[in-house]
Amino acid sequence: MSLDGPDHEALLDLRRDLHRHPEPAWREFYTTARLVDELETRPLDELYVGPEVLSEDRRGVPDEAELATWAERAVDAGARADVVDRLAGGHTGLVAVLRRGPGPTVGVRVDIDGLPITEAEDADHLPASEGFRSENEGYMHACGHDAHATVGVGVVDAIAAGDFEGTLKVFFQPAEETVSGGEPMAQGGHLDDVDYLLALHVGLDHPTGQVVAGIDGFLAVSHFDAEFSGASAHAGGHPERGRNAVQAMATAVQNLYSIPRHHDGATRVNAGRVGGGTASNIVPEAAFIEGEVRGETTDLMEYMDDHAMRVLRSAAETHDCEVEVEYAGRAPSGESDGELAAVVADVAGDTAGVDSIRDRDTLGGSEDATYLMQRVQARGGLASYVCVGTDHPDGHHTPAFDVDEETIRIAVDVLSGAVERIGAERP
Amino acid sequence: MSLDGPDHEALLDLRRDLHRHPEPAWREFYTTARLVDELETRPLDELYVGPEVLSEDRRGVPDEAELATWAERAVDAGARADVVDRLAGGHTGLVAVLRRGPGPTVGVRVDIDGLPITEAEDADHLPASEGFRSENEGYMHACGHDAHATVGVGVVDAIAAGDFEGTLKVFFQPAEETVSGGEPMAQGGHLDDVDYLLALHVGLDHPTGQVVAGIDGFLAVSHFDAEFSGASAHAGGHPERGRNAVQAMATAVQNLYSIPRHHDGATRVNAGRVGGGTASNIVPEAAFIEGEVRGETTDLMEYMDDHAMRVLRSAAETHDCEVEVEYAGRAPSGESDGELAAVVADVAGDTAGVDSIRDRDTLGGSEDATYLMQRVQARGGLASYVCVGTDHPDGHHTPAFDVDEETIRIAVDVLSGAVERIGAERP
Amino acid sequence: MSLDGPDHEALLDLRRDLHRHPEPAWREFYTTARLVDELETRPLDELYVGPEVLSEDRRGVPDEAELATWAERAVDAGARADVVDRLAGGHTGLVAVLRRGPGPTVGVRVDIDGLPITEAEDADHLPASEGFRSENEGYMHACGHDAHATVGVGVVDAIAAGDFEGTLKVFFQPAEETVSGGEPMAQGGHLDDVDYLLALHVGLDHPTGQVVAGIDGFLAVSHFDAEFSGASAHAGGHPERGRNAVQAMATAVQNLYSIPRHHDGATRVNAGRVGGGTASNIVPEAAFIEGEVRGETTDLMEYMDDHAMRVLRSAAETHDCEVEVEYAGRAPSGESDGELAAVVADVAGDTAGVDSIRDRDTLGGSEDATYLMQRVQARGGLASYVCVGTDHPDGHHTPAFDVDEETIRIAVDVLSGAVERIGAERP
Amino acid sequence: MSLDGPDHEALLDLRRDLHRHPEPAWREFYTTARLVDELETRPLDELYVGPEVLSEDRRGVPDEAELATWAERAVDAGARADVVDRLAGGHTGLVAVLRRGPGPTVGVRVDIDGLPITEAEDADHLPASEGFRSENEGYMHACGHDAHATVGVGVVDAIAAGDFEGTLKVFFQPAEETVSGGEPMAQGGHLDDVDYLLALHVGLDHPTGQVVAGIDGFLAVSHFDAEFSGASAHAGGHPERGRNAVQAMATAVQNLYSIPRHHDGATRVNAGRVGGGTASNIVPEAAFIEGEVRGETTDLMEYMDDHAMRVLRSAAETHDCEVEVEYAGRAPSGESDGELAAVVADVAGDTAGVDSIRDRDTLGGSEDATYLMQRVQARGGLASYVCVGTDHPDGHHTPAFDVDEETIRIAVDVLSGAVERIGAERP
Repeated sequence: MSLDGPDHEALLDLRRDLHRHPEPAWREFYTTARLVDELETRPLDELYVGPEVLSEDRRGVPDEAELATWAERAVDAGARADVVDRLAGGHTGLVAVLRRGPGPTVGVRVDIDGLPITEAEDADHLPASEGFRSENEGYMHACGHDAHATVGVGVVDAIAAGDFEGTLKVFFQPAEETVSGGEPMAQGGHLDDVDYLLALHVGLDHPTGQVVAGIDGFLAVSHFDAEFSGASAHAGGHPERGRNAVQAMATAVQNLYSIPRHHDGATRVNAGRVGGGTASNIVPEAAFIEGEVRGETTDLMEYMDDHAMRVLRSAAETHDCEVEVEYAGRAPSGESDGELAAVVADVAGDTAGVDSIRDRDTLGGSEDATYLMQRVQARGGLASYVCVGTDHPDGHHTPAFDVDEETIRIAVDVLSGAVERIGAERP
Repeated sequence: MSLDGPDHEALLDLRRDLHRHPEPAWREFYTTARLVDELETRPLDELYVGPEVLSEDRRGVPDEAELATWAERAVDAGARADVVDRLAGGHTGLVAVLRRGPGPTVGVRVDIDGLPITEAEDADHLPASEGFRSENEGYMHACGHDAHATVGVGVVDAIAAGDFEGTLKVFFQPAEETVSGGEPMAQGGHLDDVDYLLALHVGLDHPTGQVVAGIDGFLAVSHFDAEFSGASAHAGGHPERGRNAVQAMATAVQNLYSIPRHHDGATRVNAGRVGGGTASNIVPEAAFIEGEVRGETTDLMEYMDDHAMRVLRSAAETHDCEVEVEYAGRAPSGESDGELAAVVADVAGDTAGVDSIRDRDTLGGSEDATYLMQRVQARGGLASYVCVGTDHPDGHHTPAFDVDEETIRIAVDVLSGAVERIGAERP
Repeated sequence: MSLDGPDHEALLDLRRDLHRHPEPAWREFYTTARLVDELETRPLDELYVGPEVLSEDRRGVPDEAELATWAERAVDAGARADVVDRLAGGHTGLVAVLRRGPGPTVGVRVDIDGLPITEAEDADHLPASEGFRSENEGYMHACGHDAHATVGVGVVDAIAAGDFEGTLKVFFQPAEETVSGGEPMAQGGHLDDVDYLLALHVGLDHPTGQVVAGIDGFLAVSHFDAEFSGASAHAGGHPERGRNAVQAMATAVQNLYSIPRHHDGATRVNAGRVGGGTASNIVPEAAFIEGEVRGETTDLMEYMDDHAMRVLRSAAETHDCEVEVEYAGRAPSGESDGELAAVVADVAGDTAGVDSIRDRDTLGGSEDATYLMQRVQARGGLASYVCVGTDHPDGHHTPAFDVDEETIRIAVDVLSGAVERIGAERP
Repeated sequence: MSLDGPDHEALLDLRRDLHRHPEPAWREFYTTARLVDELETRPLDELYVGPEVLSEDRRGVPDEAELATWAERAVDAGARADVVDRLAGGHTGLVAVLRRGPGPTVGVRVDIDGLPITEAEDADHLPASEGFRSENEGYMHACGHDAHATVGVGVVDAIAAGDFEGTLKVFFQPAEETVSGGEPMAQGGHLDDVDYLLALHVGLDHPTGQVVAGIDGFLAVSHFDAEFSGASAHAGGHPERGRNAVQAMATAVQNLYSIPRHHDGATRVNAGRVGGGTASNIVPEAAFIEGEVRGETTDLMEYMDDHAMRVLRSAAETHDCEVEVEYAGRAPSGESDGELAAVVADVAGDTAGVDSIRDRDTLGGSEDATYLMQRVQARGGLASYVCVGTDHPDGHHTPAFDVDEETIRIAVDVLSGAVERIGAERP
């Protein structure tokens, strides 16, 4: 590692190593440990991990057995046991700090978790043919967070080698895919002095060479887990002794989708994963819905959420069952600040490999980066969600998704360039 | 093994060994092989296994991988590999034949499969405290089929040592719990010359010492597996691109339970196991229902089945999905013949340990012994379904179910006594 | 009117006059007044009408405007205004008492209300061709209550002319079709000294000449009116401001029919009349269900009722609506007493025109005569529900229903004969 | 009538007379005849009524009996019988043509139908206190179409008295409230040479003195009437013989509201009026839904409509019923042309009584003026939907709605001023 800036070959090795070890939300043990290894070789001022970067109130954390399985798997794959120990309880993620004299504090946020998708094995899927396909069968970096984490390291390298005056903080956030990592990281304390925040995503149907300086139109989202419980009975002998949790669940599904549409804007609802019962001849005692509601604004999401909670309770009651509902993750809507996006657009115009710049685009999905953006904006700071395009052979969240690695270099250049420009111009 | 009749100690050992190795429908590899081992030491005239006892058209057979897992497990537990090989494709079950000169052919039918229930570990659960709890974790003989199979062997012993003239055939039927073994065994050829058939069940809420000579009131039943398929989509971005299989399934569940009740008698319906979808933010592409319908008569079951199939198809269509439905098992209703039950009642009156005899009782559940009974009755033969009571600490199909082993001796005596009396009296 | 017994020509005139003036539940003003006219010419000891024969707690009584309309129509058709005045508030019905010295008190119960069915006009419909078709368009005696009331008068005539010793009470009950008249008449006081009760129905798919001495198998029934209320809104502009009462109603309908079937016997449920909303572009503010539940026993009916009430409440809550439920009528299950039925069968055997006698039959429907029967049975008395067959061209409750008038004579003979025999034999 | 321009006193009399005689869609007999009376006194070149202004393919026309009732009522109220005769079959509406030499053809579209709403009787409701409350009880001009029709006459007066060169056509359209009059009038031929079209609405929450020059954001809408038919049965005796149309309807309602939301914009669905069945103890044979779907674009409306039709069919099939669906009215989405709106805004700025001008506003509801606008725009013409504000005491479509009559003068001045300016400027 020199102070001559990012070593792109090394960054690609890092990205491929992370790609080989995708880990789902709150189980990013190998990923966090590998990033610690990497960053400890950089001239950082501070490096925080695990409980040091997250507030205590976290949602969607798996049980101890599941955490232990993944922690063990991480160590087996070469993760440092002392780091994994610091992540006990699934406190994954880290924050790297580089202090370069007086000046603004600029944050860069990247996310680091993978998805429960089985990666393609076809010869025309580059990770397969080049030997860095997922080693955690059934899991995959199918949304580019391996590239995001790598860019976070690259930005540290670029700023360490450059002229930036001020403080750089890179947030490596866990559990974005379940929109559960953003809120505890936003409340973890490290954002409270950040003046400017840049959040990154690659791809999103934009090709390599295109940059979107500020993304808007995040749908606010809330995930819930509903567990219905009734009483089982022999379906032939004594159906009347049952309290049928599957009927309760089905009634809930039917009525969740029929929550009234809203004058003020787009709403969404989905009962994405459901199940219940044990055998065809037993009245089902238990059933569940893993679902979500969304809204074009946080108010609209809350409108949907209020209705959904009432539907879940009433549907249970309809069939004399009980229901327990837990929130599994949540994110507000959000907007990028135009002044900051303008800086990004300017820098992108000067960046090699960028041939198309769009000022704004609409996401139409959800992202818990909005928690971090709101935290900064609430204090008067500026935030922008930046998209760096990448040619991806198939859609996000599909088995054949992949990133064009050239994107990593472009993203490092755009983000570090923007950090430097912010330091100079304080928009 | 002497010709002095059943060795009850040996029978109890057999029962406990079978209890330790419960195997679900079409996977009774250890059980079949163990029974072959046992029966080969008896003076049988013929012993048929696997494809020799079943017609080809079987429902609910698991896939090859699942079959291979259980076959391997059986061999690991000590089953003879050569026998297991003969059961390829899950052709489990056997028929033992003892030819004792001219006279009627009398069949005895016992079933041999276990259930997907995790057995109790409590000290007051005898199999746990006595060391013969299930070694196939998650599976259990929770309906007494271990005792039934043992009684089948005991009847061979008793008849071999006695005066019976005629032919005895003992049918060890697989896959009763999924009502899928009865039909192929009924069509397997070995019943076609049976003049009298006795089918056995222990317990059914009757205490040790009580015998019911003829059970009636079997509900006809049909199990189905419905697979709904639609199209997935991002629930936030493009819900309109989805064709929601979970909505289709939920619509089906709601409407299955609301098939009109029927003037002619009792009907039942159950969506016993359901599921669908992959994640809260994906419009579900696939869903399923494992369900059943029943009727007090076969006609009533078919009424329910016709309606259920239409509901499944229409519910799929409602949400622009497809549905594939397969029958997973089926049994008609059935009646015991009074003349034959009278013989059983008579013999029971002379049997040590029997202190209460009931001529008739109503089951209120389903059983695919009815296929075998109908096969015999269709040719003019007589059939009766006999219950030998047993003190069972908890209900059938519960983790703490157990049989009072004294029941095994009583059942062997009642059934073999009835076989002898039938040979003598030809009712 | 002589003491030589019933004048059958006069009775047929009475029946046809009642047939011309069918009146629905609690609106039997003309009918009651006409019967008073008729009975005042008989040598009765007492004649009670309206509030004198009913307890105060009545269900399903229409509003004042509706009552006024029918009262006025009755007077216009020739009903005596002074009698109609006594029936204020829809207190219809009467009880005739004939005291003939010491001896048992024997009750005969007939019902008098019509149905909201438009009578056939075809030439082959006798009331049309013979000129006594309904003059209250949209209403019809389609269940033979015109004949029942006539038989009640005929029995008075027969007993007045005969040797019976004891007390005869004939109960002319209103509001049977809505099962709302039976309960208040049972609680009206006049049954409290009745030792034997005979209730009558003609037809029920039994031909002229056949008598069923004792009917059993009444389904207990409970009718309910559910009114859902929410909030209207413009369906295009602000759907979220609505609280959709039609969605609540539809959710209730779906779940009412799916109340679990019951081990102990037959159950029924029906959402027989529903409605809601005002225009296609308004979110519906109000909706209703007029429904019923039934059970083979009163317990089974109450099981269904408990579930139905919970479904109605929960369905309203699901869509943020309210629901008000009122019971509109109710009847328990019931059994005829064998000793009393035996007397009826005996008498029927001696009656001209009777060529077939059945001891028992099962109704499969509901009847609130069961309230009167239970009242008598609770005090140790005996009751039987007697069917006198009649050739009816089309089913009960259809526009072309009619009774064979010969049935009236047979019914008078059988019932009056049974009353006399009871007086003599005190079974 | 002079050529000095509109006589505002006379126009107010006309408006109040129309207000006293509100008539619903396709029943505007009095209204049409009254307008003919009025317009025949003007110096028109042509006046077309009834079948002369509508294409043959009309939706939502009531049956002959209903039409006859309203035609008779109109004549009773003073309408000329010869005009009413020309409107046979409910061909209401008219087109007035004034030809003033060469120049563009300018259309003005007003609608004339009332609503099925009972008008307020309170003293603070001006039509009640001033004696022009609705004489057609249960119906009301609750959306200002009485004022619209009056403005149409006033514009004729103003143009007749002014300098306009070109052709003026005033379209008095029936059946707007059911969105069924717009399409046949658009196809009636009289629009085919119109170069500019101004459509008018008063109010819409804009106060007196405010004008909106061009309204956009019409939701495309389609109304449907679905009739479900099954088979009735006795709910207690033979529920299995029924094919339950109310269950079909309820299943449809549940699934209509749960049609997936759409990425491309707002969608709506409503089952606004439903009903079914005849009595609580009869399995319902028939049921209906009067419903609608809407979309922010015509494509989105058609997406909803496709799904709705499939849901209706499948829900019927689920319960073994049939369904017939008829379209009852339809309107596309629409946009006002900016160039034409600019002219209106200019003129409004010069009009006495106008103190606030808005260039654009969004409707958020539906209107079948869009059919007429599209007809003109398809030929290269320009169209704008103009709102002239009015202080209305309560919302549109409520019993206490009323218009501030000053609005009529302003609307006449703005529209006639715009017609003159168009003639002069040809934007």
